[in-house]
Amino acid sequence: MAIEGKDEQAREPRIRLGMVGGGAGAFIGAVHRMAARLDDQFDLVAGALSSTPEKAIASGRDLGLDPSRTYGSYKEMAIREARLKDGIEAVSIVTPNHVHYEAAKEFLKRGIHVICDKPLTSNLADAKKMKKAADESGALFILTHNYTGYPMVRQAREMVANGELGKIRVVQVEYPQDWLTEAVEQTGAKQAVWRTDPAQSGAGGSTGDIGTHAYNLAAFVTGLTLESLAADLDSFVEGRRLDDNAHVMLRYEGGAKGMLWCSQVAPGHENGLKIRVYGTKGGIEWVQADPNYLWFTPFGEPKRLITRNGAGSGAAAGRVSRIPSGHPEGYLEAFATIYTEAARAINAVRQGVAVDKAVIYPTVDDGVKGVAFVEACVASSKKNGAWVKL
Amino acid sequence: MAIEGKDEQAREPRIRLGMVGGGAGAFIGAVHRMAARLDDQFDLVAGALSSTPEKAIASGRDLGLDPSRTYGSYKEMAIREARLKDGIEAVSIVTPNHVHYEAAKEFLKRGIHVICDKPLTSNLADAKKMKKAADESGALFILTHNYTGYPMVRQAREMVANGELGKIRVVQVEYPQDWLTEAVEQTGAKQAVWRTDPAQSGAGGSTGDIGTHAYNLAAFVTGLTLESLAADLDSFVEGRRLDDNAHVMLRYEGGAKGMLWCSQVAPGHENGLKIRVYGTKGGIEWVQADPNYLWFTPFGEPKRLITRNGAGSGAAAGRVSRIPSGHPEGYLEAFATIYTEAARAINAVRQGVAVDKAVIYPTVDDGVKGVAFVEACVASSKKNGAWVKL
Amino acid sequence: MAIEGKDEQAREPRIRLGMVGGGAGAFIGAVHRMAARLDDQFDLVAGALSSTPEKAIASGRDLGLDPSRTYGSYKEMAIREARLKDGIEAVSIVTPNHVHYEAAKEFLKRGIHVICDKPLTSNLADAKKMKKAADESGALFILTHNYTGYPMVRQAREMVANGELGKIRVVQVEYPQDWLTEAVEQTGAKQAVWRTDPAQSGAGGSTGDIGTHAYNLAAFVTGLTLESLAADLDSFVEGRRLDDNAHVMLRYEGGAKGMLWCSQVAPGHENGLKIRVYGTKGGIEWVQADPNYLWFTPFGEPKRLITRNGAGSGAAAGRVSRIPSGHPEGYLEAFATIYTEAARAINAVRQGVAVDKAVIYPTVDDGVKGVAFVEACVASSKKNGAWVKL
Amino acid sequence: MAIEGKDEQAREPRIRLGMVGGGAGAFIGAVHRMAARLDDQFDLVAGALSSTPEKAIASGRDLGLDPSRTYGSYKEMAIREARLKDGIEAVSIVTPNHVHYEAAKEFLKRGIHVICDKPLTSNLADAKKMKKAADESGALFILTHNYTGYPMVRQAREMVANGELGKIRVVQVEYPQDWLTEAVEQTGAKQAVWRTDPAQSGAGGSTGDIGTHAYNLAAFVTGLTLESLAADLDSFVEGRRLDDNAHVMLRYEGGAKGMLWCSQVAPGHENGLKIRVYGTKGGIEWVQADPNYLWFTPFGEPKRLITRNGAGSGAAAGRVSRIPSGHPEGYLEAFATIYTEAARAINAVRQGVAVDKAVIYPTVDDGVKGVAFVEACVASSKKNGAWVKL
Repeated sequence: MAIEGKDEQAREPRIRLGMVGGGAGAFIGAVHRMAARLDDQFDLVAGALSSTPEKAIASGRDLGLDPSRTYGSYKEMAIREARLKDGIEAVSIVTPNHVHYEAAKEFLKRGIHVICDKPLTSNLADAKKMKKAADESGALFILTHNYTGYPMVRQAREMVANGELGKIRVVQVEYPQDWLTEAVEQTGAKQAVWRTDPAQSGAGGSTGDIGTHAYNLAAFVTGLTLESLAADLDSFVEGRRLDDNAHVMLRYEGGAKGMLWCSQVAPGHENGLKIRVYGTKGGIEWVQADPNYLWFTPFGEPKRLITRNGAGSGAAAGRVSRIPSGHPEGYLEAFATIYTEAARAINAVRQGVAVDKAVIYPTVDDGVKGVAFVEACVASSKKNGAWVKL
Repeated sequence: MAIEGKDEQAREPRIRLGMVGGGAGAFIGAVHRMAARLDDQFDLVAGALSSTPEKAIASGRDLGLDPSRTYGSYKEMAIREARLKDGIEAVSIVTPNHVHYEAAKEFLKRGIHVICDKPLTSNLADAKKMKKAADESGALFILTHNYTGYPMVRQAREMVANGELGKIRVVQVEYPQDWLTEAVEQTGAKQAVWRTDPAQSGAGGSTGDIGTHAYNLAAFVTGLTLESLAADLDSFVEGRRLDDNAHVMLRYEGGAKGMLWCSQVAPGHENGLKIRVYGTKGGIEWVQADPNYLWFTPFGEPKRLITRNGAGSGAAAGRVSRIPSGHPEGYLEAFATIYTEAARAINAVRQGVAVDKAVIYPTVDDGVKGVAFVEACVASSKKNGAWVKL
Repeated sequence: MAIEGKDEQAREPRIRLGMVGGGAGAFIGAVHRMAARLDDQFDLVAGALSSTPEKAIASGRDLGLDPSRTYGSYKEMAIREARLKDGIEAVSIVTPNHVHYEAAKEFLKRGIHVICDKPLTSNLADAKKMKKAADESGALFILTHNYTGYPMVRQAREMVANGELGKIRVVQVEYPQDWLTEAVEQTGAKQAVWRTDPAQSGAGGSTGDIGTHAYNLAAFVTGLTLESLAADLDSFVEGRRLDDNAHVMLRYEGGAKGMLWCSQVAPGHENGLKIRVYGTKGGIEWVQADPNYLWFTPFGEPKRLITRNGAGSGAAAGRVSRIPSGHPEGYLEAFATIYTEAARAINAVRQGVAVDKAVIYPTVDDGVKGVAFVEACVASSKKNGAWVKL
Repeated sequence: MAIEGKDEQAREPRIRLGMVGGGAGAFIGAVHRMAARLDDQFDLVAGALSSTPEKAIASGRDLGLDPSRTYGSYKEMAIREARLKDGIEAVSIVTPNHVHYEAAKEFLKRGIHVICDKPLTSNLADAKKMKKAADESGALFILTHNYTGYPMVRQAREMVANGELGKIRVVQVEYPQDWLTEAVEQTGAKQAVWRTDPAQSGAGGSTGDIGTHAYNLAAFVTGLTLESLAADLDSFVEGRRLDDNAHVMLRYEGGAKGMLWCSQVAPGHENGLKIRVYGTKGGIEWVQADPNYLWFTPFGEPKRLITRNGAGSGAAAGRVSRIPSGHPEGYLEAFATIYTEAARAINAVRQGVAVDKAVIYPTVDDGVKGVAFVEACVASSKKNGAWVKL
């Protein structure tokens, strides 16, 4: 192995974690559990894993949960766990979007930290209620915009913040996929059905599912605030009820401009999240499918390939990186970083100290902005692409 | 060498060619001359190479032209050559944009074929006059939208036309550069000065210089007609008089949608022309800097790398390809293909036969559309990005 | 998320795991622990983490181990744990190479399964003793040739086995690094010191540390048996006691030929493990730094990019893959797969049933072959590159 | 266009050129003619284009040659042209290898410059005779090792010479193809037939056809002299009379080591010439299929992508480059550079001045070394891979 290792952080007792949703067959639940395990900061001890009781019980058993802590509803779990001496300290909410708010508020009001999948909610009204609930709670609220956990995304953000790109002029961000090129939701495929159902997903289809990721990533990397947008949304597949392709022009405060494309009907793209940022002094490019690389061109110099933990990779990337350069980290590691950052914050709360400034995780505010972004896209598109303020 | 060669086409007498513009220091003039030479279909025999007489004479001498056919003005050249028994049969016009029309009409009205650099003219009024002049002339008009000469662009066009992508839904096209990131026009650099001068270039900066290429390429590959566009143009560099970055949303007839980005202020991009097209059955991607590759994903199958003259490369690419797969052709070869297609058409005219249907070159109509595209971008941007019909 | 998820496998009680080596500052110990955690099949409950007692205790505390199960030596751990009712069922050995055999035999003879880092031992005599100890034990022996856990390596192996490449003719494998370009071992860097010390590493430097990986990967993918080799080894850095660059020509049984290059002095390479295999019907290419891709060219057809869990990716890759295509898995996931395959085998032993044939992990036999490869390289090089039989 | 152009070099009268071989259907003849035309330094005025008289005549007519200068044999051409007042000043020899010497000597002894395709001859005896003939002649001898004409190969050579890589330790060079994966020579394909025929090609198959290119490229870039080699050659295709795959270990004077692989049976490779060079201070990588890029890693810094004429690209590349960065040049341009360098040298001879030191072209000495390389490979392989001195 090429370089000196760094060991796990000094041991705090693991954080007791519950989970809402994520029963058998749910992709994202398994991802959250692997993410919570990787850095050994959490113990999953309770769950309300499905709204179908038998499935909830079976899923709890599969995960090795104590049957007495496998609950039939999130509300029951919140009430009971809050009374236990060693009840859960945090809960992961991995249900479809429309359940997020109702579930989260039960935990927030009992002081249990919430780790919530994105988008925050299925509509802006709920998002604002969520923010209120989070603000009024003593608990932390962590939104798993997982792509912000990639080391080279942190590197990009650090470089922008340090002025290595100069003043930002142009942002190009895109998230194309191809899995909804045909009408798979009409075949009953679970992941497709809820994502194309306005009742479960909200007003945005591709905009809500992946456009929010693109929007959030651009904000995270550049630190820019979106001022307004003009959007042209389509549902190319006949019978589809939500957008499956979106073209969006962006205007940021301070004069930077951008374009955002998200699509679920672009053959050849699996999860093609990509961001490019250009400033007066340089440009960068990062692609999610090849996440250990960051391309950086200082204006007038050759393009450079910065690798995770390699030469040119700085502190922000290093602190969320586990292994040496040249050995790739992936999606699960980035997701785990969100959990580990959450653990650092929760441990600080446990100890009554301030959270270290280096700790970064997406918050309820990011979530509100994401839902507002989706609703602005829909509103603009309905007004024939007129500019809509955020 | 890997495969059987194909020899030059059977010999017709070389076409006698003149050139307007392209004196010493002019990048594009040298390119046109190399392009005209490569396939040995033209003899450069006359020139009005500069509007500065001494420079015109010196440039003619450098190129080995007969001094008696080195002219001080394009008008003089047109008049005199038209009277010669062995006068020029075709002329290349490689001046700044605003001169194109005035120069071309002198040759067109005398039946001399015109090969004209793009964009067609610096404004739509001139473009329409150019079309009228071309239509009224018995001569051919070839616009050097050179990227259409790349074999894999021909391949892409053929695949779309053959239905291999199904019905087209989404077009993503971009042409970023970085050479105007700083205010180089204020240093007097010749190439930068005229390209940022409305009097010489017209209303569009990046839109005219490179946006037209992107627009033309999308039209060429997809065969789609642009119905309307919404544009957001910027001049990021202080004091710059024309746009140096443009974000454009596209609506094609028949329902396809697109995005177009062109920029001269994107550090890390040299000539980053790239097109991606997505249909109901597949997607393709082509990048000008790596022109011998075409990525093709039939929906539901692995991505394939089609190489020029390699497996999967068809007749349309093969007929404009000179060497075996694995040996790269480049920009000059693509440019030469425009000249060679022009030669095929001119030879047909010489012989009084119809031009073979396989022969393709951009026409005055493409040029009018390109100038209309630029003016629509400028108009839309002035109306805060409102949709403008083409 | 693009596709239906698959959940964790049905729950068996976690396997109780101990660890030898891997105290603070040891890169590979932390990797083994993350790998053991990811799929939730193991509980780390005991450790002899360092040969320095204070460090062993501190490291155990950092990892949250019960102090009564933090041992000062592997022998003590083996004796004590074997007597416990809930003592460890398996042990991970992550020390420098020369300790592997002495440590492993203590556990093997007590029926405790051994998961051992590679190379198997620092010399062939020890390797053969290890094999004897493993064979005489009722316990399993798993060697963590972790690259065999990458899904697309499994895919490659499956394709070769299925005859998709036809009869194999040529193998090109390489593992270049650059971290020993300068004499870092003379600065005291721990990872460099033991890897360049014959007493700790054995007769091979780059050959032992990374050449064995390359050799093993070629054998794993192709299923071919190496018949003989001719090697030219160098220690380019002055004062270095072991090879830091090796050129090896390979002859496989059945007539296939190969080349192997490993280097620690190749600037620009972090962990550049790469394999290419060519047969009568096709060729493949895989690169460790971009592990979710497998390039496949059926002879006479376009090159195809097969992605993990994407189109064209088969059962062998799918069963060791956790997340949908387009979301990258990395080094830790591949390493975790070795652990999870080990868990599957251990669970079969627990239940007294045969191990499923689909379960694959490197064995002590692979380890013996690896050490024999290193010694053959050294022997050939000493004989001026004469062919040495394996 | 991104940068100021540079115009053609000031005009010397074009050099009168003849050609031996290269009639209809000959791939390489057409390449030589395009290469000679591109920079407008030559006029093709005579030819002995085929050993079949009718074909020679027809080919001359297709090329527009004066019938009186279309000859039935190279000897006739040499004799007659030497007597003409405006006879050819240089001749291109593009026949199969075994004809090179007999043809070239006829021109050399008459003081006509020779531009000869590689390899120099089909055996070392002829090669030495060729050198003698060239040395005794007042004429120049240019060998078209065309890959040395690529700008980024010149860049690589310049960087090595300038010490940017430090002392060279390791060279990895390869040239895989796949076009002889099956026994196409048995179908009568002309290019395959002569390349697999010892009488026409010499003792080497892949070693002669492409291995010489790889060997020459390594020498050109590094400036190193090969001291000895150990080779393992195969003819994988049944019935093939010459090697179609070669593995070669290299030892250079001064201690650098290398590996060379050439193959015609590696599915997925078209013309996969690639070179990597590693020194004490850095490493570089260049790939012929993507020739406008040079990867450079200064040890301890991020990898850099140097592009032709872009930032970091120096004088050696710039003087053989025609167009701005980002617009790719290809194989024909590199080949044309050999011709243009030849023209510069010939023009110096015309003027009785010394050739500018910046002018570089492969010579008869390079050719002798190339043939010696092939024969050493064959000799080593026959001696079971023993080291053979060059």
